[in-house]
Amino acid sequence: MSWPRWLAEQRAERERAGLQRALRPRALGEDVLDLASNDYLGLSAHPEVRAAAAGAARSWGAGSGASRLVTGTTTLHGELEAELAGFTGRPAALVCSTGYHANLSAVTALADREALIVSDAHVHASLVDAARLSRATVEAVPHNDVDAVRAALDSAGGRRAMVLAESVYSVLGDAAPLAELAGICAERGALLLVDEAHGLGVVGDGGRGLVAGLERAPHVVMTATLSKSLGAMGGAVLGSPELVEHLVNRARPFIFDTALAPAPTAGALAALRVLRDRPELPERIHLRAARLAERLGVASSTGAVLSVPMPSPQRALAAQAAAREAGVRVGCFRPPSVPDGVSRLRITAQAGIAEHAWEHAVEVLTGVVERHGGGS
Amino acid sequence: MSWPRWLAEQRAERERAGLQRALRPRALGEDVLDLASNDYLGLSAHPEVRAAAAGAARSWGAGSGASRLVTGTTTLHGELEAELAGFTGRPAALVCSTGYHANLSAVTALADREALIVSDAHVHASLVDAARLSRATVEAVPHNDVDAVRAALDSAGGRRAMVLAESVYSVLGDAAPLAELAGICAERGALLLVDEAHGLGVVGDGGRGLVAGLERAPHVVMTATLSKSLGAMGGAVLGSPELVEHLVNRARPFIFDTALAPAPTAGALAALRVLRDRPELPERIHLRAARLAERLGVASSTGAVLSVPMPSPQRALAAQAAAREAGVRVGCFRPPSVPDGVSRLRITAQAGIAEHAWEHAVEVLTGVVERHGGGS
Repeated sequence: MSWPRWLAEQRAERERAGLQRALRPRALGEDVLDLASNDYLGLSAHPEVRAAAAGAARSWGAGSGASRLVTGTTTLHGELEAELAGFTGRPAALVCSTGYHANLSAVTALADREALIVSDAHVHASLVDAARLSRATVEAVPHNDVDAVRAALDSAGGRRAMVLAESVYSVLGDAAPLAELAGICAERGALLLVDEAHGLGVVGDGGRGLVAGLERAPHVVMTATLSKSLGAMGGAVLGSPELVEHLVNRARPFIFDTALAPAPTAGALAALRVLRDRPELPERIHLRAARLAERLGVASSTGAVLSVPMPSPQRALAAQAAAREAGVRVGCFRPPSVPDGVSRLRITAQAGIAEHAWEHAVEVLTGVVERHGGGS
Repeated sequence: MSWPRWLAEQRAERERAGLQRALRPRALGEDVLDLASNDYLGLSAHPEVRAAAAGAARSWGAGSGASRLVTGTTTLHGELEAELAGFTGRPAALVCSTGYHANLSAVTALADREALIVSDAHVHASLVDAARLSRATVEAVPHNDVDAVRAALDSAGGRRAMVLAESVYSVLGDAAPLAELAGICAERGALLLVDEAHGLGVVGDGGRGLVAGLERAPHVVMTATLSKSLGAMGGAVLGSPELVEHLVNRARPFIFDTALAPAPTAGALAALRVLRDRPELPERIHLRAARLAERLGVASSTGAVLSVPMPSPQRALAAQAAAREAGVRVGCFRPPSVPDGVSRLRITAQAGIAEHAWEHAVEVLTGVVERHGGGS
């Protein structure tokens, strides 16, 4: 089939299924309450975070100039790595330019053809891609099924094995049974990789994530993003100094990538310091998520993401448009971004919105979801 | 084998081969001439670029808040896409958060199990990873071997086929035979993907890259980075509006990734405008590269990168250290970052360095390379 014809057929198929997507740029200063972003703590716009990012762009320039190993590593990267490690209680950290790069780097540098990867069915696209790219044998297990993980590891037959999970899953907002997974892995000499993309800044003591709460975790590799609760951009891998040294030498998606730019590096560092000083910010997310879930009649969330099932992709889109019309922006999940094929509104509890505005958003969404047949 | 033992053995193997790498943070205001970075035009530190990046961090915040499809697309992204497309003569553009993401997105959204990828042996790690991730049949052909590409395409047998090349190769600095490749692909209904990471801002009319010089190129997909000559961070895919729409809907490394942060987006846009206004900047790179190549007795480069073969990885490192001692920073390529296993100094011609300082750097490097047995 020719390329133009293939592209046209792919498009027609999406149109028929109601799954065509388009980019909608937002302008500066729009009068909208944003409950779609992953900037859960509102730190992207925090005065100290803005100032740090702007200051770094002024003093260091707009870019890092090269890959981390060539000349792209600045003292800013070093400071951020030290403070990220300190905050989450990990021995060492390595900053990457995106969370995707962090997951690709960690998995592909560790797993090879001789390794076994046991992957939870709900892990993020970046972990799925990372596992595929590694060429390891990949065994996908049902979501949060501890027995299935145990059985898969027991079949490893001497191969190095690695389990992939998220601390808080982004679509359904549920948590992984981390303590059990960590125990199973420790007993069997397996690594446990936990993506804290939606955990850092949101769950655990003062927003330290769930890995920080594990009793013994030398075999746990943590990944995180700097683009969600830390309001900037980038990702990180956290673990032992030996792990970090290995990634620096072997992770192609780290080695062959330009270093994170100065502005988001400094922004993430400033945001981390705000978070450290204000443990009440993550707490506010939970209060708001619980209250909103109650009003919408849906299950509450371990994290900041509320997932509201809708009768169809079309109804989900209509509800999203109605909310936007009323001044509230929410996300919309449609296949293939949902593990079970059910379209959903994706609403994130935001600590950075003032109380009266938050209450207004709750009212708007309660009405919109009811009118469009949503909720469980 | 246990994970700790495997990590230790991997490390010992690198040590024995002289291939251990470590990150060396640079500080603000170091007194060094940087001939290692890919900021070829010096635009990262250009006053207008710094100001634009800082201004965007102040007004938009440190991050974009979410993926491009959710709420991460700002009018800044739209402006940058329109101007990138206009400058390079492509109908449409899509900005990604890194060049790696751009290549992963373009290749994986287009090629699938039923496709054939014909890949030049010297393409960047991101294209190698992208081809692997796509699950297409991948045929690697010898570097710049037009006949091999033709033969591979002739064996496609009705499959959709795609050829991967770079306009200017980053390690050896040579150019691809683009006009011939484009002709071969057009005759056979294949796509030609050209990575202009080291071409944009450096080669072609006013730095427009080499794809802009092709006579007919509707079947050419261009990718680029915003982190090299444009001095910021990020990547882009350029081609038809149908291509961009397809990527927005199907490219997992685009869809499931937080949008490029405001500061590097605005920085790249400002740099593009400087480049458009100052076509003499790319010209200066070529004059400097040619002169330096002559002094070092190595082949000149189509692009900004001079590649100086060294007798061993250890001598390459020693030469790099001696240059640094004398105030000049250069890069060092060792296996596995070199296609032929030969360690090299990697020196980039920089348009942003003042004339007398540039001449000083040339003197320093001429002496260092001679003393360490380098050059061809």
